[in-house]
Amino acid sequence: MSEPAYAAVDWGTSSFRLWLVDGAGAALAERRTPQGMAALTSPDFAPVLDSHLEALGAPRGLPVLICGMAGARKGWVEAGYVDTPARLSSIAERAVAAPHASRDVRILPGLAQRDPSRPDVMRGEETQLLGAFGFEPTGRALVCLPGTHSKWVTVGAGTVERFTTFMTGDLFSAVTQRTILSHAVAGAENAEDVDAFRSAVSAAFDNPALAANLLFQVRSRELLAGGAPASARERISGTLIGLELAGGLPKEATGQGITLIASGRLRQRYSSAFDTLSVPVRTIDADQAALAGLSICARAIWSA
Amino acid sequence: MSEPAYAAVDWGTSSFRLWLVDGAGAALAERRTPQGMAALTSPDFAPVLDSHLEALGAPRGLPVLICGMAGARKGWVEAGYVDTPARLSSIAERAVAAPHASRDVRILPGLAQRDPSRPDVMRGEETQLLGAFGFEPTGRALVCLPGTHSKWVTVGAGTVERFTTFMTGDLFSAVTQRTILSHAVAGAENAEDVDAFRSAVSAAFDNPALAANLLFQVRSRELLAGGAPASARERISGTLIGLELAGGLPKEATGQGITLIASGRLRQRYSSAFDTLSVPVRTIDADQAALAGLSICARAIWSA
Repeated sequence: MSEPAYAAVDWGTSSFRLWLVDGAGAALAERRTPQGMAALTSPDFAPVLDSHLEALGAPRGLPVLICGMAGARKGWVEAGYVDTPARLSSIAERAVAAPHASRDVRILPGLAQRDPSRPDVMRGEETQLLGAFGFEPTGRALVCLPGTHSKWVTVGAGTVERFTTFMTGDLFSAVTQRTILSHAVAGAENAEDVDAFRSAVSAAFDNPALAANLLFQVRSRELLAGGAPASARERISGTLIGLELAGGLPKEATGQGITLIASGRLRQRYSSAFDTLSVPVRTIDADQAALAGLSICARAIWSA
Repeated sequence: MSEPAYAAVDWGTSSFRLWLVDGAGAALAERRTPQGMAALTSPDFAPVLDSHLEALGAPRGLPVLICGMAGARKGWVEAGYVDTPARLSSIAERAVAAPHASRDVRILPGLAQRDPSRPDVMRGEETQLLGAFGFEPTGRALVCLPGTHSKWVTVGAGTVERFTTFMTGDLFSAVTQRTILSHAVAGAENAEDVDAFRSAVSAAFDNPALAANLLFQVRSRELLAGGAPASARERISGTLIGLELAGGLPKEATGQGITLIASGRLRQRYSSAFDTLSVPVRTIDADQAALAGLSICARAIWSA
């Protein structure tokens, strides 16, 4: 078995993923925990990172490259932003060293869109985009990266031209936990109702201005007709995703197709939403894209 | 001083308002508390009501008429719904007696819209509508009653033809307390920024599909340009109200004007939002409308 050349880490607000990677870019070992940076302060980062590396038997002094919220102002060390239009290859050049006694640790920057009429930021997704598209110039693509704060990104010839964040997942948590609708969804965490989801996607996509009413209809339906918590939960999810798609998809070009970078349940939900609207989708696994993007940057940084 | 003929109560989820009213419909005394029905169970209602009546020196046996969430399934006693199209005068005929040892207590029903494609419910606003329009046939009016669950109601000739609820206030609480935006608004409970509010109203009204992005822009603006918590709070409020207005106002007829039934800060905010969009508004005080509606029903019930 080959030796690890570096560790690649995607350190988000609520999740931590680490891979040991060999010189050819192949993952040798992997570790995932919900130990995101939200629960940590700056002095915690180095020992937490070391504990995960030790658990995988990583050599002392193995260099580490990190993307994600660990580079935010309240993260380990602020890694700043590359401004749009942003060449994806430039994120490797702008990596910042994090303080560590015995390792070379670097954190990749995020992207910022400083147009005052549509300010926006991302941290972590730029690395997935680099992994998905590589350094090579490509044609233009509209990319959806769903999540707590979903990103819709226009990429052309290896450059992020512009992007738009929709706080869909964050709204879903708040709506299901802290509004009148919390009663309607109680106990439905893992149930499914595909028809309810799809009809809610269509309704919100067709009438985004009614979003705050379509959400309340979940309550009205419960009072007037009963209704399962699973259906209520799926309607809320479908309404918020349909609203996002109404804002993210160009009006004329829904037939042109988009690139979806997602994993797991989000991948399934967004695939279903795009299918409901007959939008062709090319899907790339988000975890693989993150690892690929980190590997491209690690080779650029340590093989230079 | 004249003697009270009955007590009128607007008992909502989070508020309690009581008036002692004379035979001519004039309020003799008033009491307001945040003792809404959310914190009460069925056996609490009679003693809580009596304590407020005693505090105002109301005679033993004074009859009481109640509107609002006290008539919900989980309220004092379920008062059911009048279905749309609903004559406003019919709510008096459908009042339900609540159990009380020594008083005649009646609770008014709500309204239900049972169209399965747009189910909806209200409790309390029907009484305000009756107070605003009376028993008399009128022309048609589009009425906005803002709140936790804002109602947009089409009234024609004393009949509620249809209505639409937008959970704007509920979303505002959830978004400011339970999303990433909670950091941006900390400590800004009573501050104002009229320009931020108005520009957010316009942006969401013009592009409702971007609502979940316009909200996230509050966060992006904070990270990239700093920004006062008051401005952040006003932008969130303006975005959600602008989204509501995009759904509630008919596309062609914004010049036709609407009737706003509201009090206090909500009245000020929605007036400002309509003014931003150059929509003419006739405003009716919500508290006065509730009292007037209860009085119309009380006379119909006890003078019959």
